[in-house]
Amino acid sequence: MTTSGKIWTAALAVIGDEILSGRTHDRNIAQIASWLQVQGIRLTEVRVVADDMDAIAEAVNALRSKYDYLFTTGGIGPTHDDITVDAVAQALGVPVVVHPEARAMLEDYYRDRPGGLTDARLRMARVPEGATLIPNRMSGAPGIKHGNIHLMAGVPTITAQMLDALTGTLEGGAPLISETIGGYILESEVADILREIEKMHEGCQIGSYPFFREGKTGANLVIRSTDAELLANCVDALIQALEEAGNDVTPGGI
Amino acid sequence: MTTSGKIWTAALAVIGDEILSGRTHDRNIAQIASWLQVQGIRLTEVRVVADDMDAIAEAVNALRSKYDYLFTTGGIGPTHDDITVDAVAQALGVPVVVHPEARAMLEDYYRDRPGGLTDARLRMARVPEGATLIPNRMSGAPGIKHGNIHLMAGVPTITAQMLDALTGTLEGGAPLISETIGGYILESEVADILREIEKMHEGCQIGSYPFFREGKTGANLVIRSTDAELLANCVDALIQALEEAGNDVTPGGI
Repeated sequence: MTTSGKIWTAALAVIGDEILSGRTHDRNIAQIASWLQVQGIRLTEVRVVADDMDAIAEAVNALRSKYDYLFTTGGIGPTHDDITVDAVAQALGVPVVVHPEARAMLEDYYRDRPGGLTDARLRMARVPEGATLIPNRMSGAPGIKHGNIHLMAGVPTITAQMLDALTGTLEGGAPLISETIGGYILESEVADILREIEKMHEGCQIGSYPFFREGKTGANLVIRSTDAELLANCVDALIQALEEAGNDVTPGGI
Repeated sequence: MTTSGKIWTAALAVIGDEILSGRTHDRNIAQIASWLQVQGIRLTEVRVVADDMDAIAEAVNALRSKYDYLFTTGGIGPTHDDITVDAVAQALGVPVVVHPEARAMLEDYYRDRPGGLTDARLRMARVPEGATLIPNRMSGAPGIKHGNIHLMAGVPTITAQMLDALTGTLEGGAPLISETIGGYILESEVADILREIEKMHEGCQIGSYPFFREGKTGANLVIRSTDAELLANCVDALIQALEEAGNDVTPGGI
């Protein structure tokens, strides 16, 4: 899908019974995917697993060896169901230790807050031995980095802070760029055009994403490449072919 | 987590570059999870994989053998990037065939529509050999059932139609029931209470889901069980313990 250079890849393990029960709509997949694209890293696989030691450890070990980077979300808070640190330590075969810097951050954060630094809150200073910290200005509790694994919060606004702290620190390749065109077109009528145009433009990839709105059928077409010139050529050719076949399309998508 | 009976499990494979790129927020995980709960089946793992034959086939084979049921979403439309049927057939080691009933459904659906039943549209009648169909009143293109695998649409409104058609047809266990209580409580202050109450109530599980709203910190606590009486006892005990510790909580969550 790129014409040169290494493709950097990442996986995400979403840890959370609340996602698997349907109670909470995940917002971290899209957030982390978009952030990774800007870093030049491609999110290639996501697994959502239960709050279960063995399930988390198995996913962590499968994904950390298969991709350049692994991110996890969820399970690093103060409650008894927050077991991500323990599960990652089990996966890595290292003990869980209290990180002195994380402890200091929490002591600082809770110094003037009611209740102070309780045992429950101190749980948030626990890390798999050998880890470094990912700062989080919002709640005092840091994210955790161990080798190519990054443990992030489950709350999307806190994860956003941690991603901000990581921006520019990970090695990545040429970012994947994309353009979207859309219209009230019938996917099944333009399928042959999409296939032909993609075949004629190596290094470009066309995705077709249908929708139904207000009783009308349409599709947005996303053209992706790591090369701006290849991308522009493919987009131009696609628009021309669709218009010649009688379709109205809108650059930028609808 | 249940006191008796088999726990029926399911996995979901979400197939779609559009989710992995961050462009589209998935809505099928929550939709299918909620539907499964009502069928008495527990969604236990989700994988999101790229529009790639080998990635899909690998996920399908890993998940179909590990869980009672497997659902997939996405990649069963008419375009060149819709390869789920081919990938599942590869995983199962069976050929892809045109299903006569699916063909008839599509002929019927497209008889009076512009363009008629083109080759691209006929792609939607292709199934892994041995499959049966899952009706879909919305677009004419059916879902596909093969053994314990269920291939659903990527568009959530179409998947909803297919789930409706499947309702009551899958064997499941006692449904997991839940109650939620919530409040502007600090998760780290109530962590010990949650742990103790869960320990005292076998067959119940307590999840804690923090949030930030309008500058205030709170949490919803979800208590789950397959037994209504155990659940009610656990909820009562939890509310009492939280209120004794000075927390205002609201049944139903906030």
